[in-house]
Amino acid sequence: MSPPAATDVIRLSVDCMGGDHGPSVTLPACRAFLAAHPLAEVVLVGRAEALAPATGWDRCHVVAATEVVEMDDAVEVALRRKKDSSLRVALMQLKSGADGQPPRAHACVSAGNTGALMAVARYLLKTLEGIDRPAIAAVMPNQKDGYTTVLDLGANVDCSAEHLLQFAVMGSALVAAVDGKENPSVGLLNIGEEVIKGNETIKRAGELLRAAAEGGHVNFHGNVEGNDIFKGTTDIVVCDGFVGNVALKTAEGLASMLSSFIKQEFTRNIFTKMAALVALPVLNHFKHRVDHRRYSGGALLGLRGLVFKAHGSSDAYAFEQALNRAYDAARNHLLDRVHDRIRDSLHALPTPASASGASSDGAALAA
Amino acid sequence: MSPPAATDVIRLSVDCMGGDHGPSVTLPACRAFLAAHPLAEVVLVGRAEALAPATGWDRCHVVAATEVVEMDDAVEVALRRKKDSSLRVALMQLKSGADGQPPRAHACVSAGNTGALMAVARYLLKTLEGIDRPAIAAVMPNQKDGYTTVLDLGANVDCSAEHLLQFAVMGSALVAAVDGKENPSVGLLNIGEEVIKGNETIKRAGELLRAAAEGGHVNFHGNVEGNDIFKGTTDIVVCDGFVGNVALKTAEGLASMLSSFIKQEFTRNIFTKMAALVALPVLNHFKHRVDHRRYSGGALLGLRGLVFKAHGSSDAYAFEQALNRAYDAARNHLLDRVHDRIRDSLHALPTPASASGASSDGAALAA
Repeated sequence: MSPPAATDVIRLSVDCMGGDHGPSVTLPACRAFLAAHPLAEVVLVGRAEALAPATGWDRCHVVAATEVVEMDDAVEVALRRKKDSSLRVALMQLKSGADGQPPRAHACVSAGNTGALMAVARYLLKTLEGIDRPAIAAVMPNQKDGYTTVLDLGANVDCSAEHLLQFAVMGSALVAAVDGKENPSVGLLNIGEEVIKGNETIKRAGELLRAAAEGGHVNFHGNVEGNDIFKGTTDIVVCDGFVGNVALKTAEGLASMLSSFIKQEFTRNIFTKMAALVALPVLNHFKHRVDHRRYSGGALLGLRGLVFKAHGSSDAYAFEQALNRAYDAARNHLLDRVHDRIRDSLHALPTPASASGASSDGAALAA
Repeated sequence: MSPPAATDVIRLSVDCMGGDHGPSVTLPACRAFLAAHPLAEVVLVGRAEALAPATGWDRCHVVAATEVVEMDDAVEVALRRKKDSSLRVALMQLKSGADGQPPRAHACVSAGNTGALMAVARYLLKTLEGIDRPAIAAVMPNQKDGYTTVLDLGANVDCSAEHLLQFAVMGSALVAAVDGKENPSVGLLNIGEEVIKGNETIKRAGELLRAAAEGGHVNFHGNVEGNDIFKGTTDIVVCDGFVGNVALKTAEGLASMLSSFIKQEFTRNIFTKMAALVALPVLNHFKHRVDHRRYSGGALLGLRGLVFKAHGSSDAYAFEQALNRAYDAARNHLLDRVHDRIRDSLHALPTPASASGASSDGAALAA
């Protein structure tokens, strides 16, 4: 389909059954999203009875799907058995019809099982030319009051140096499209800044990225460390999905511990409770600033279609943020940009030796 | 040397020149440490003029070393060129003399260059039988108001499954010795709890750990994720040094961002500053609770000698905590315990195919 113009309607297909809370979260989020975006439309996918509350909504189409991929379903179940799942049918909306009909939606959003979403999306949509493995990119807040885009966050374990390079190119296209930074900087996640640090894959990825930077294909900053994600040293941080997933989960775990400690300290006794009352506006402002729900919505990059993943535990606010990100990406022609950037970059770059044998694990990210 | 009895003198050798601040931090820390431990002695190692302030201190010996390993010196420089460095001479205090003299110190503490410390310690002290690669273990606070011991934190990249098993055994000995938990639980850091998750090395490490658990050698809990470090799901978390280092640095980066955000929020205007005054005791209590300096002091495990690493940026308080940990470890016979535990466990366990070719990177942890 041709890219949407600024005044065009953007249509999102939504897997309404996915996530820990299903329609009780996805429907209110869609409603709020529609209210905020007069040019948006949604295609709600799920069990007919579950979607009944949406009957009569404006700019809203309902597509029935009889099955649901559970959060703990194996990838194979989602791929081979549940062929009428809401997850799959929502993704189908991104494909052209057999009769040449254009796709019904510009982007798809799901809070469902990550491994299943990645596997089914890959099967249905295929990867872009030059891309062996799709990656999951998400943003984390940083000290510069912006955010850092990190990929891969768990779609791939055991990445080669070439894959890391592809992630750098895709991440650059994402940030250029969504944030309007034409030449975003890329850091390679490592255990030291020096070129000699890291394992063999990382060292080789560093070489490839430096070569790509010389060719003007990537704005490569060099090695970065875990703390640079939050310092905002670079716009983008690329890493193996195993490492990225551990970093993401570690950060989530620390944030959750610190927030429970703050709560405990302020509810310790009557004096600390009074202090909490006084400090409440400040604490709330702080809380809003680091609210992980604002950063909900990972992008599955490298597919021939725009797919966004909301966190499985999303509430309506978090799911709405994922819808917003999908909307922005579609409006800013992310798919074409990734495609163009890859075309411009990858023909000049090496391809992985084991490209065809590459397999995605996908089941890594928090379901 | 025979293990110290509860009433024995414990002697620590201290690399006084290491770290970002050298003697201006290490000397006050040693002084405070001596004051708090009437049975402790220290062997201060460094340039004679730098150690002059310690002249006349009680229970304090000074050993001159003319060179200093800089924080950015290559491992080779520390190993081959600076043979009279404070780092090396401090480690030498753990070795028996050529004339059969017992070692002068029970444990060594340095805030110096981690890679150099690991490499020189490994060269001088050698690894324990059954251990291919020493590992760096440190503790992180957890939600259960205890702490989680994590290893490896950067001494080794590209670990095999067998190495991860050795880390589990060494970590168990450390926690048993220092915390008195005889059968501490071990988690394998992964990207999902299910057995099928992770890369090939991790899956195989899971198999080895389950076998070791059946033999009663390790209390293996199963796979854990990054957030479990802070939840305190297990006493110990084992991982490849690359992954561990990224997790540690990511956590440090997030903590530092959050603390700067809190500061910003409370200094935004006159009202928030007043709120800060009221909330100050609570915030200070919180700050103390998560003060990373309390958790300073990584243990280098698997060597024939007790070596502790303080963070390069340690202030006197943080360095003193590292001295405390070294003191506790020596007093609780950590070296014998690790040795015994390995002897009891590893004879029943597989050894790595590539044991002799194993190389340690070491230069990973924050210098």
